[in-house]
Amino acid sequence: MVLEHTSKAFDSDLQELTGLAAEMGGLAERQMVDAVDALIRRDIAQGNAVVAADAEIDRLQREIEERAVLTIARRQPMAVDLRAIVGAMRLATDLERIGDLSKNIGKRVAALDSDFQPMQLMRGLEHMTDLVQSQVRAVLDAYAAQDLPAALAVWSGDEEVDAICTSLFRELLTYMMEDPRNISFCIHLMFCAKNIERIGDHATNIAETVFYMIEGQQLAEKRPKGDVTSFTRAAPGPQAEGRQ
Amino acid sequence: MVLEHTSKAFDSDLQELTGLAAEMGGLAERQMVDAVDALIRRDIAQGNAVVAADAEIDRLQREIEERAVLTIARRQPMAVDLRAIVGAMRLATDLERIGDLSKNIGKRVAALDSDFQPMQLMRGLEHMTDLVQSQVRAVLDAYAAQDLPAALAVWSGDEEVDAICTSLFRELLTYMMEDPRNISFCIHLMFCAKNIERIGDHATNIAETVFYMIEGQQLAEKRPKGDVTSFTRAAPGPQAEGRQ
Repeated sequence: MVLEHTSKAFDSDLQELTGLAAEMGGLAERQMVDAVDALIRRDIAQGNAVVAADAEIDRLQREIEERAVLTIARRQPMAVDLRAIVGAMRLATDLERIGDLSKNIGKRVAALDSDFQPMQLMRGLEHMTDLVQSQVRAVLDAYAAQDLPAALAVWSGDEEVDAICTSLFRELLTYMMEDPRNISFCIHLMFCAKNIERIGDHATNIAETVFYMIEGQQLAEKRPKGDVTSFTRAAPGPQAEGRQ
Repeated sequence: MVLEHTSKAFDSDLQELTGLAAEMGGLAERQMVDAVDALIRRDIAQGNAVVAADAEIDRLQREIEERAVLTIARRQPMAVDLRAIVGAMRLATDLERIGDLSKNIGKRVAALDSDFQPMQLMRGLEHMTDLVQSQVRAVLDAYAAQDLPAALAVWSGDEEVDAICTSLFRELLTYMMEDPRNISFCIHLMFCAKNIERIGDHATNIAETVFYMIEGQQLAEKRPKGDVTSFTRAAPGPQAEGRQ
């Protein structure tokens, strides 16, 4: 009897937690979309709104952490139940980072106030953002449904995001080399592209958390990395990028 | 009697945790120093060593999380004891991020293989790194000693780090505008500078964790932000930066 009551109490705690996680996930996804949209349309007010809204994401992360800790202390869950609580905490950490990265994009909107309108670049950024948005949405669904194949699909899907980021960097480099007046603008876009790429990385972290919750161990394989922007050689040479 | 035994068991768990946290802190600090040193001396082997060593930092973060969770479930700590365990978990999260940021710098060492030797820029980066290293060391000492004034000093000290980053960005911009062949190199340095600045932010997060452990609440004040690189206007104009 006591066991059943304790189990019901735990189930109730867990439901509360996953509810907060879903709320936080929806907010974080929205923030990323709104930030990039603000950037593309040069909507400074919307950029500022994204920056302000980040406080709510931070608040949710702390609330999830507190409730998770209290649940562990009160219900003393074990095995799969304990992993469910730890999983919610890890998810909250990744979502808080997604929020921060979106906030940073929001900050840069005001800095882009310029006549430079590189449609191709903005389209490339939009394309990468759409892809990452669907990754984030898919992994949050996988978390809610505890769907392992779906989580692993997100995990493998990040390679494409990285490849698009690498190609965007190449394009940005050519714009910068063409005309020094483009440099500041292109640097902002580079940081924004890198932020979106990192949000994609956090989606794969969440996929690894789902794996951990279901399988009870860490996903040990090295995820294939398609982003080579950290390795791109600085010296021009036979392998020089972009237009010559 | 049971209470005393439980308390001793908790103290032992906590000591184990703070020991791991100190080990992780030392490693993370070392990684940042080695990464920037490798960058400045163009030591590709050392850069690769930093990348490889990041796995140990990730491992420690998971170990701290696991032990913290088990301690909460077994000992059911309350109040200041509970905050000590949660504090260790939060610290581990920030240290893991510091490790990642250092790893990213390590990756870029190979990309800098170029004849471009901008001594002033490298000195600026070194200066910022020294400052952030002392911040990280100071906050880890503050954590170990539960020293609130020391933690708050780190918290306020970040404004200087941000200001140096802003000024480094200005310099990098002038180099890029002077000669398009400098652009790739300068972009790598920009990302490295931003990484060091973010490591500084994580040091202040750790300061906030120390505050939370001692005071039992979040540090509510908005930290003064000296880094305006996200806001730096792209369009040249009366407020244009760098040499004209």
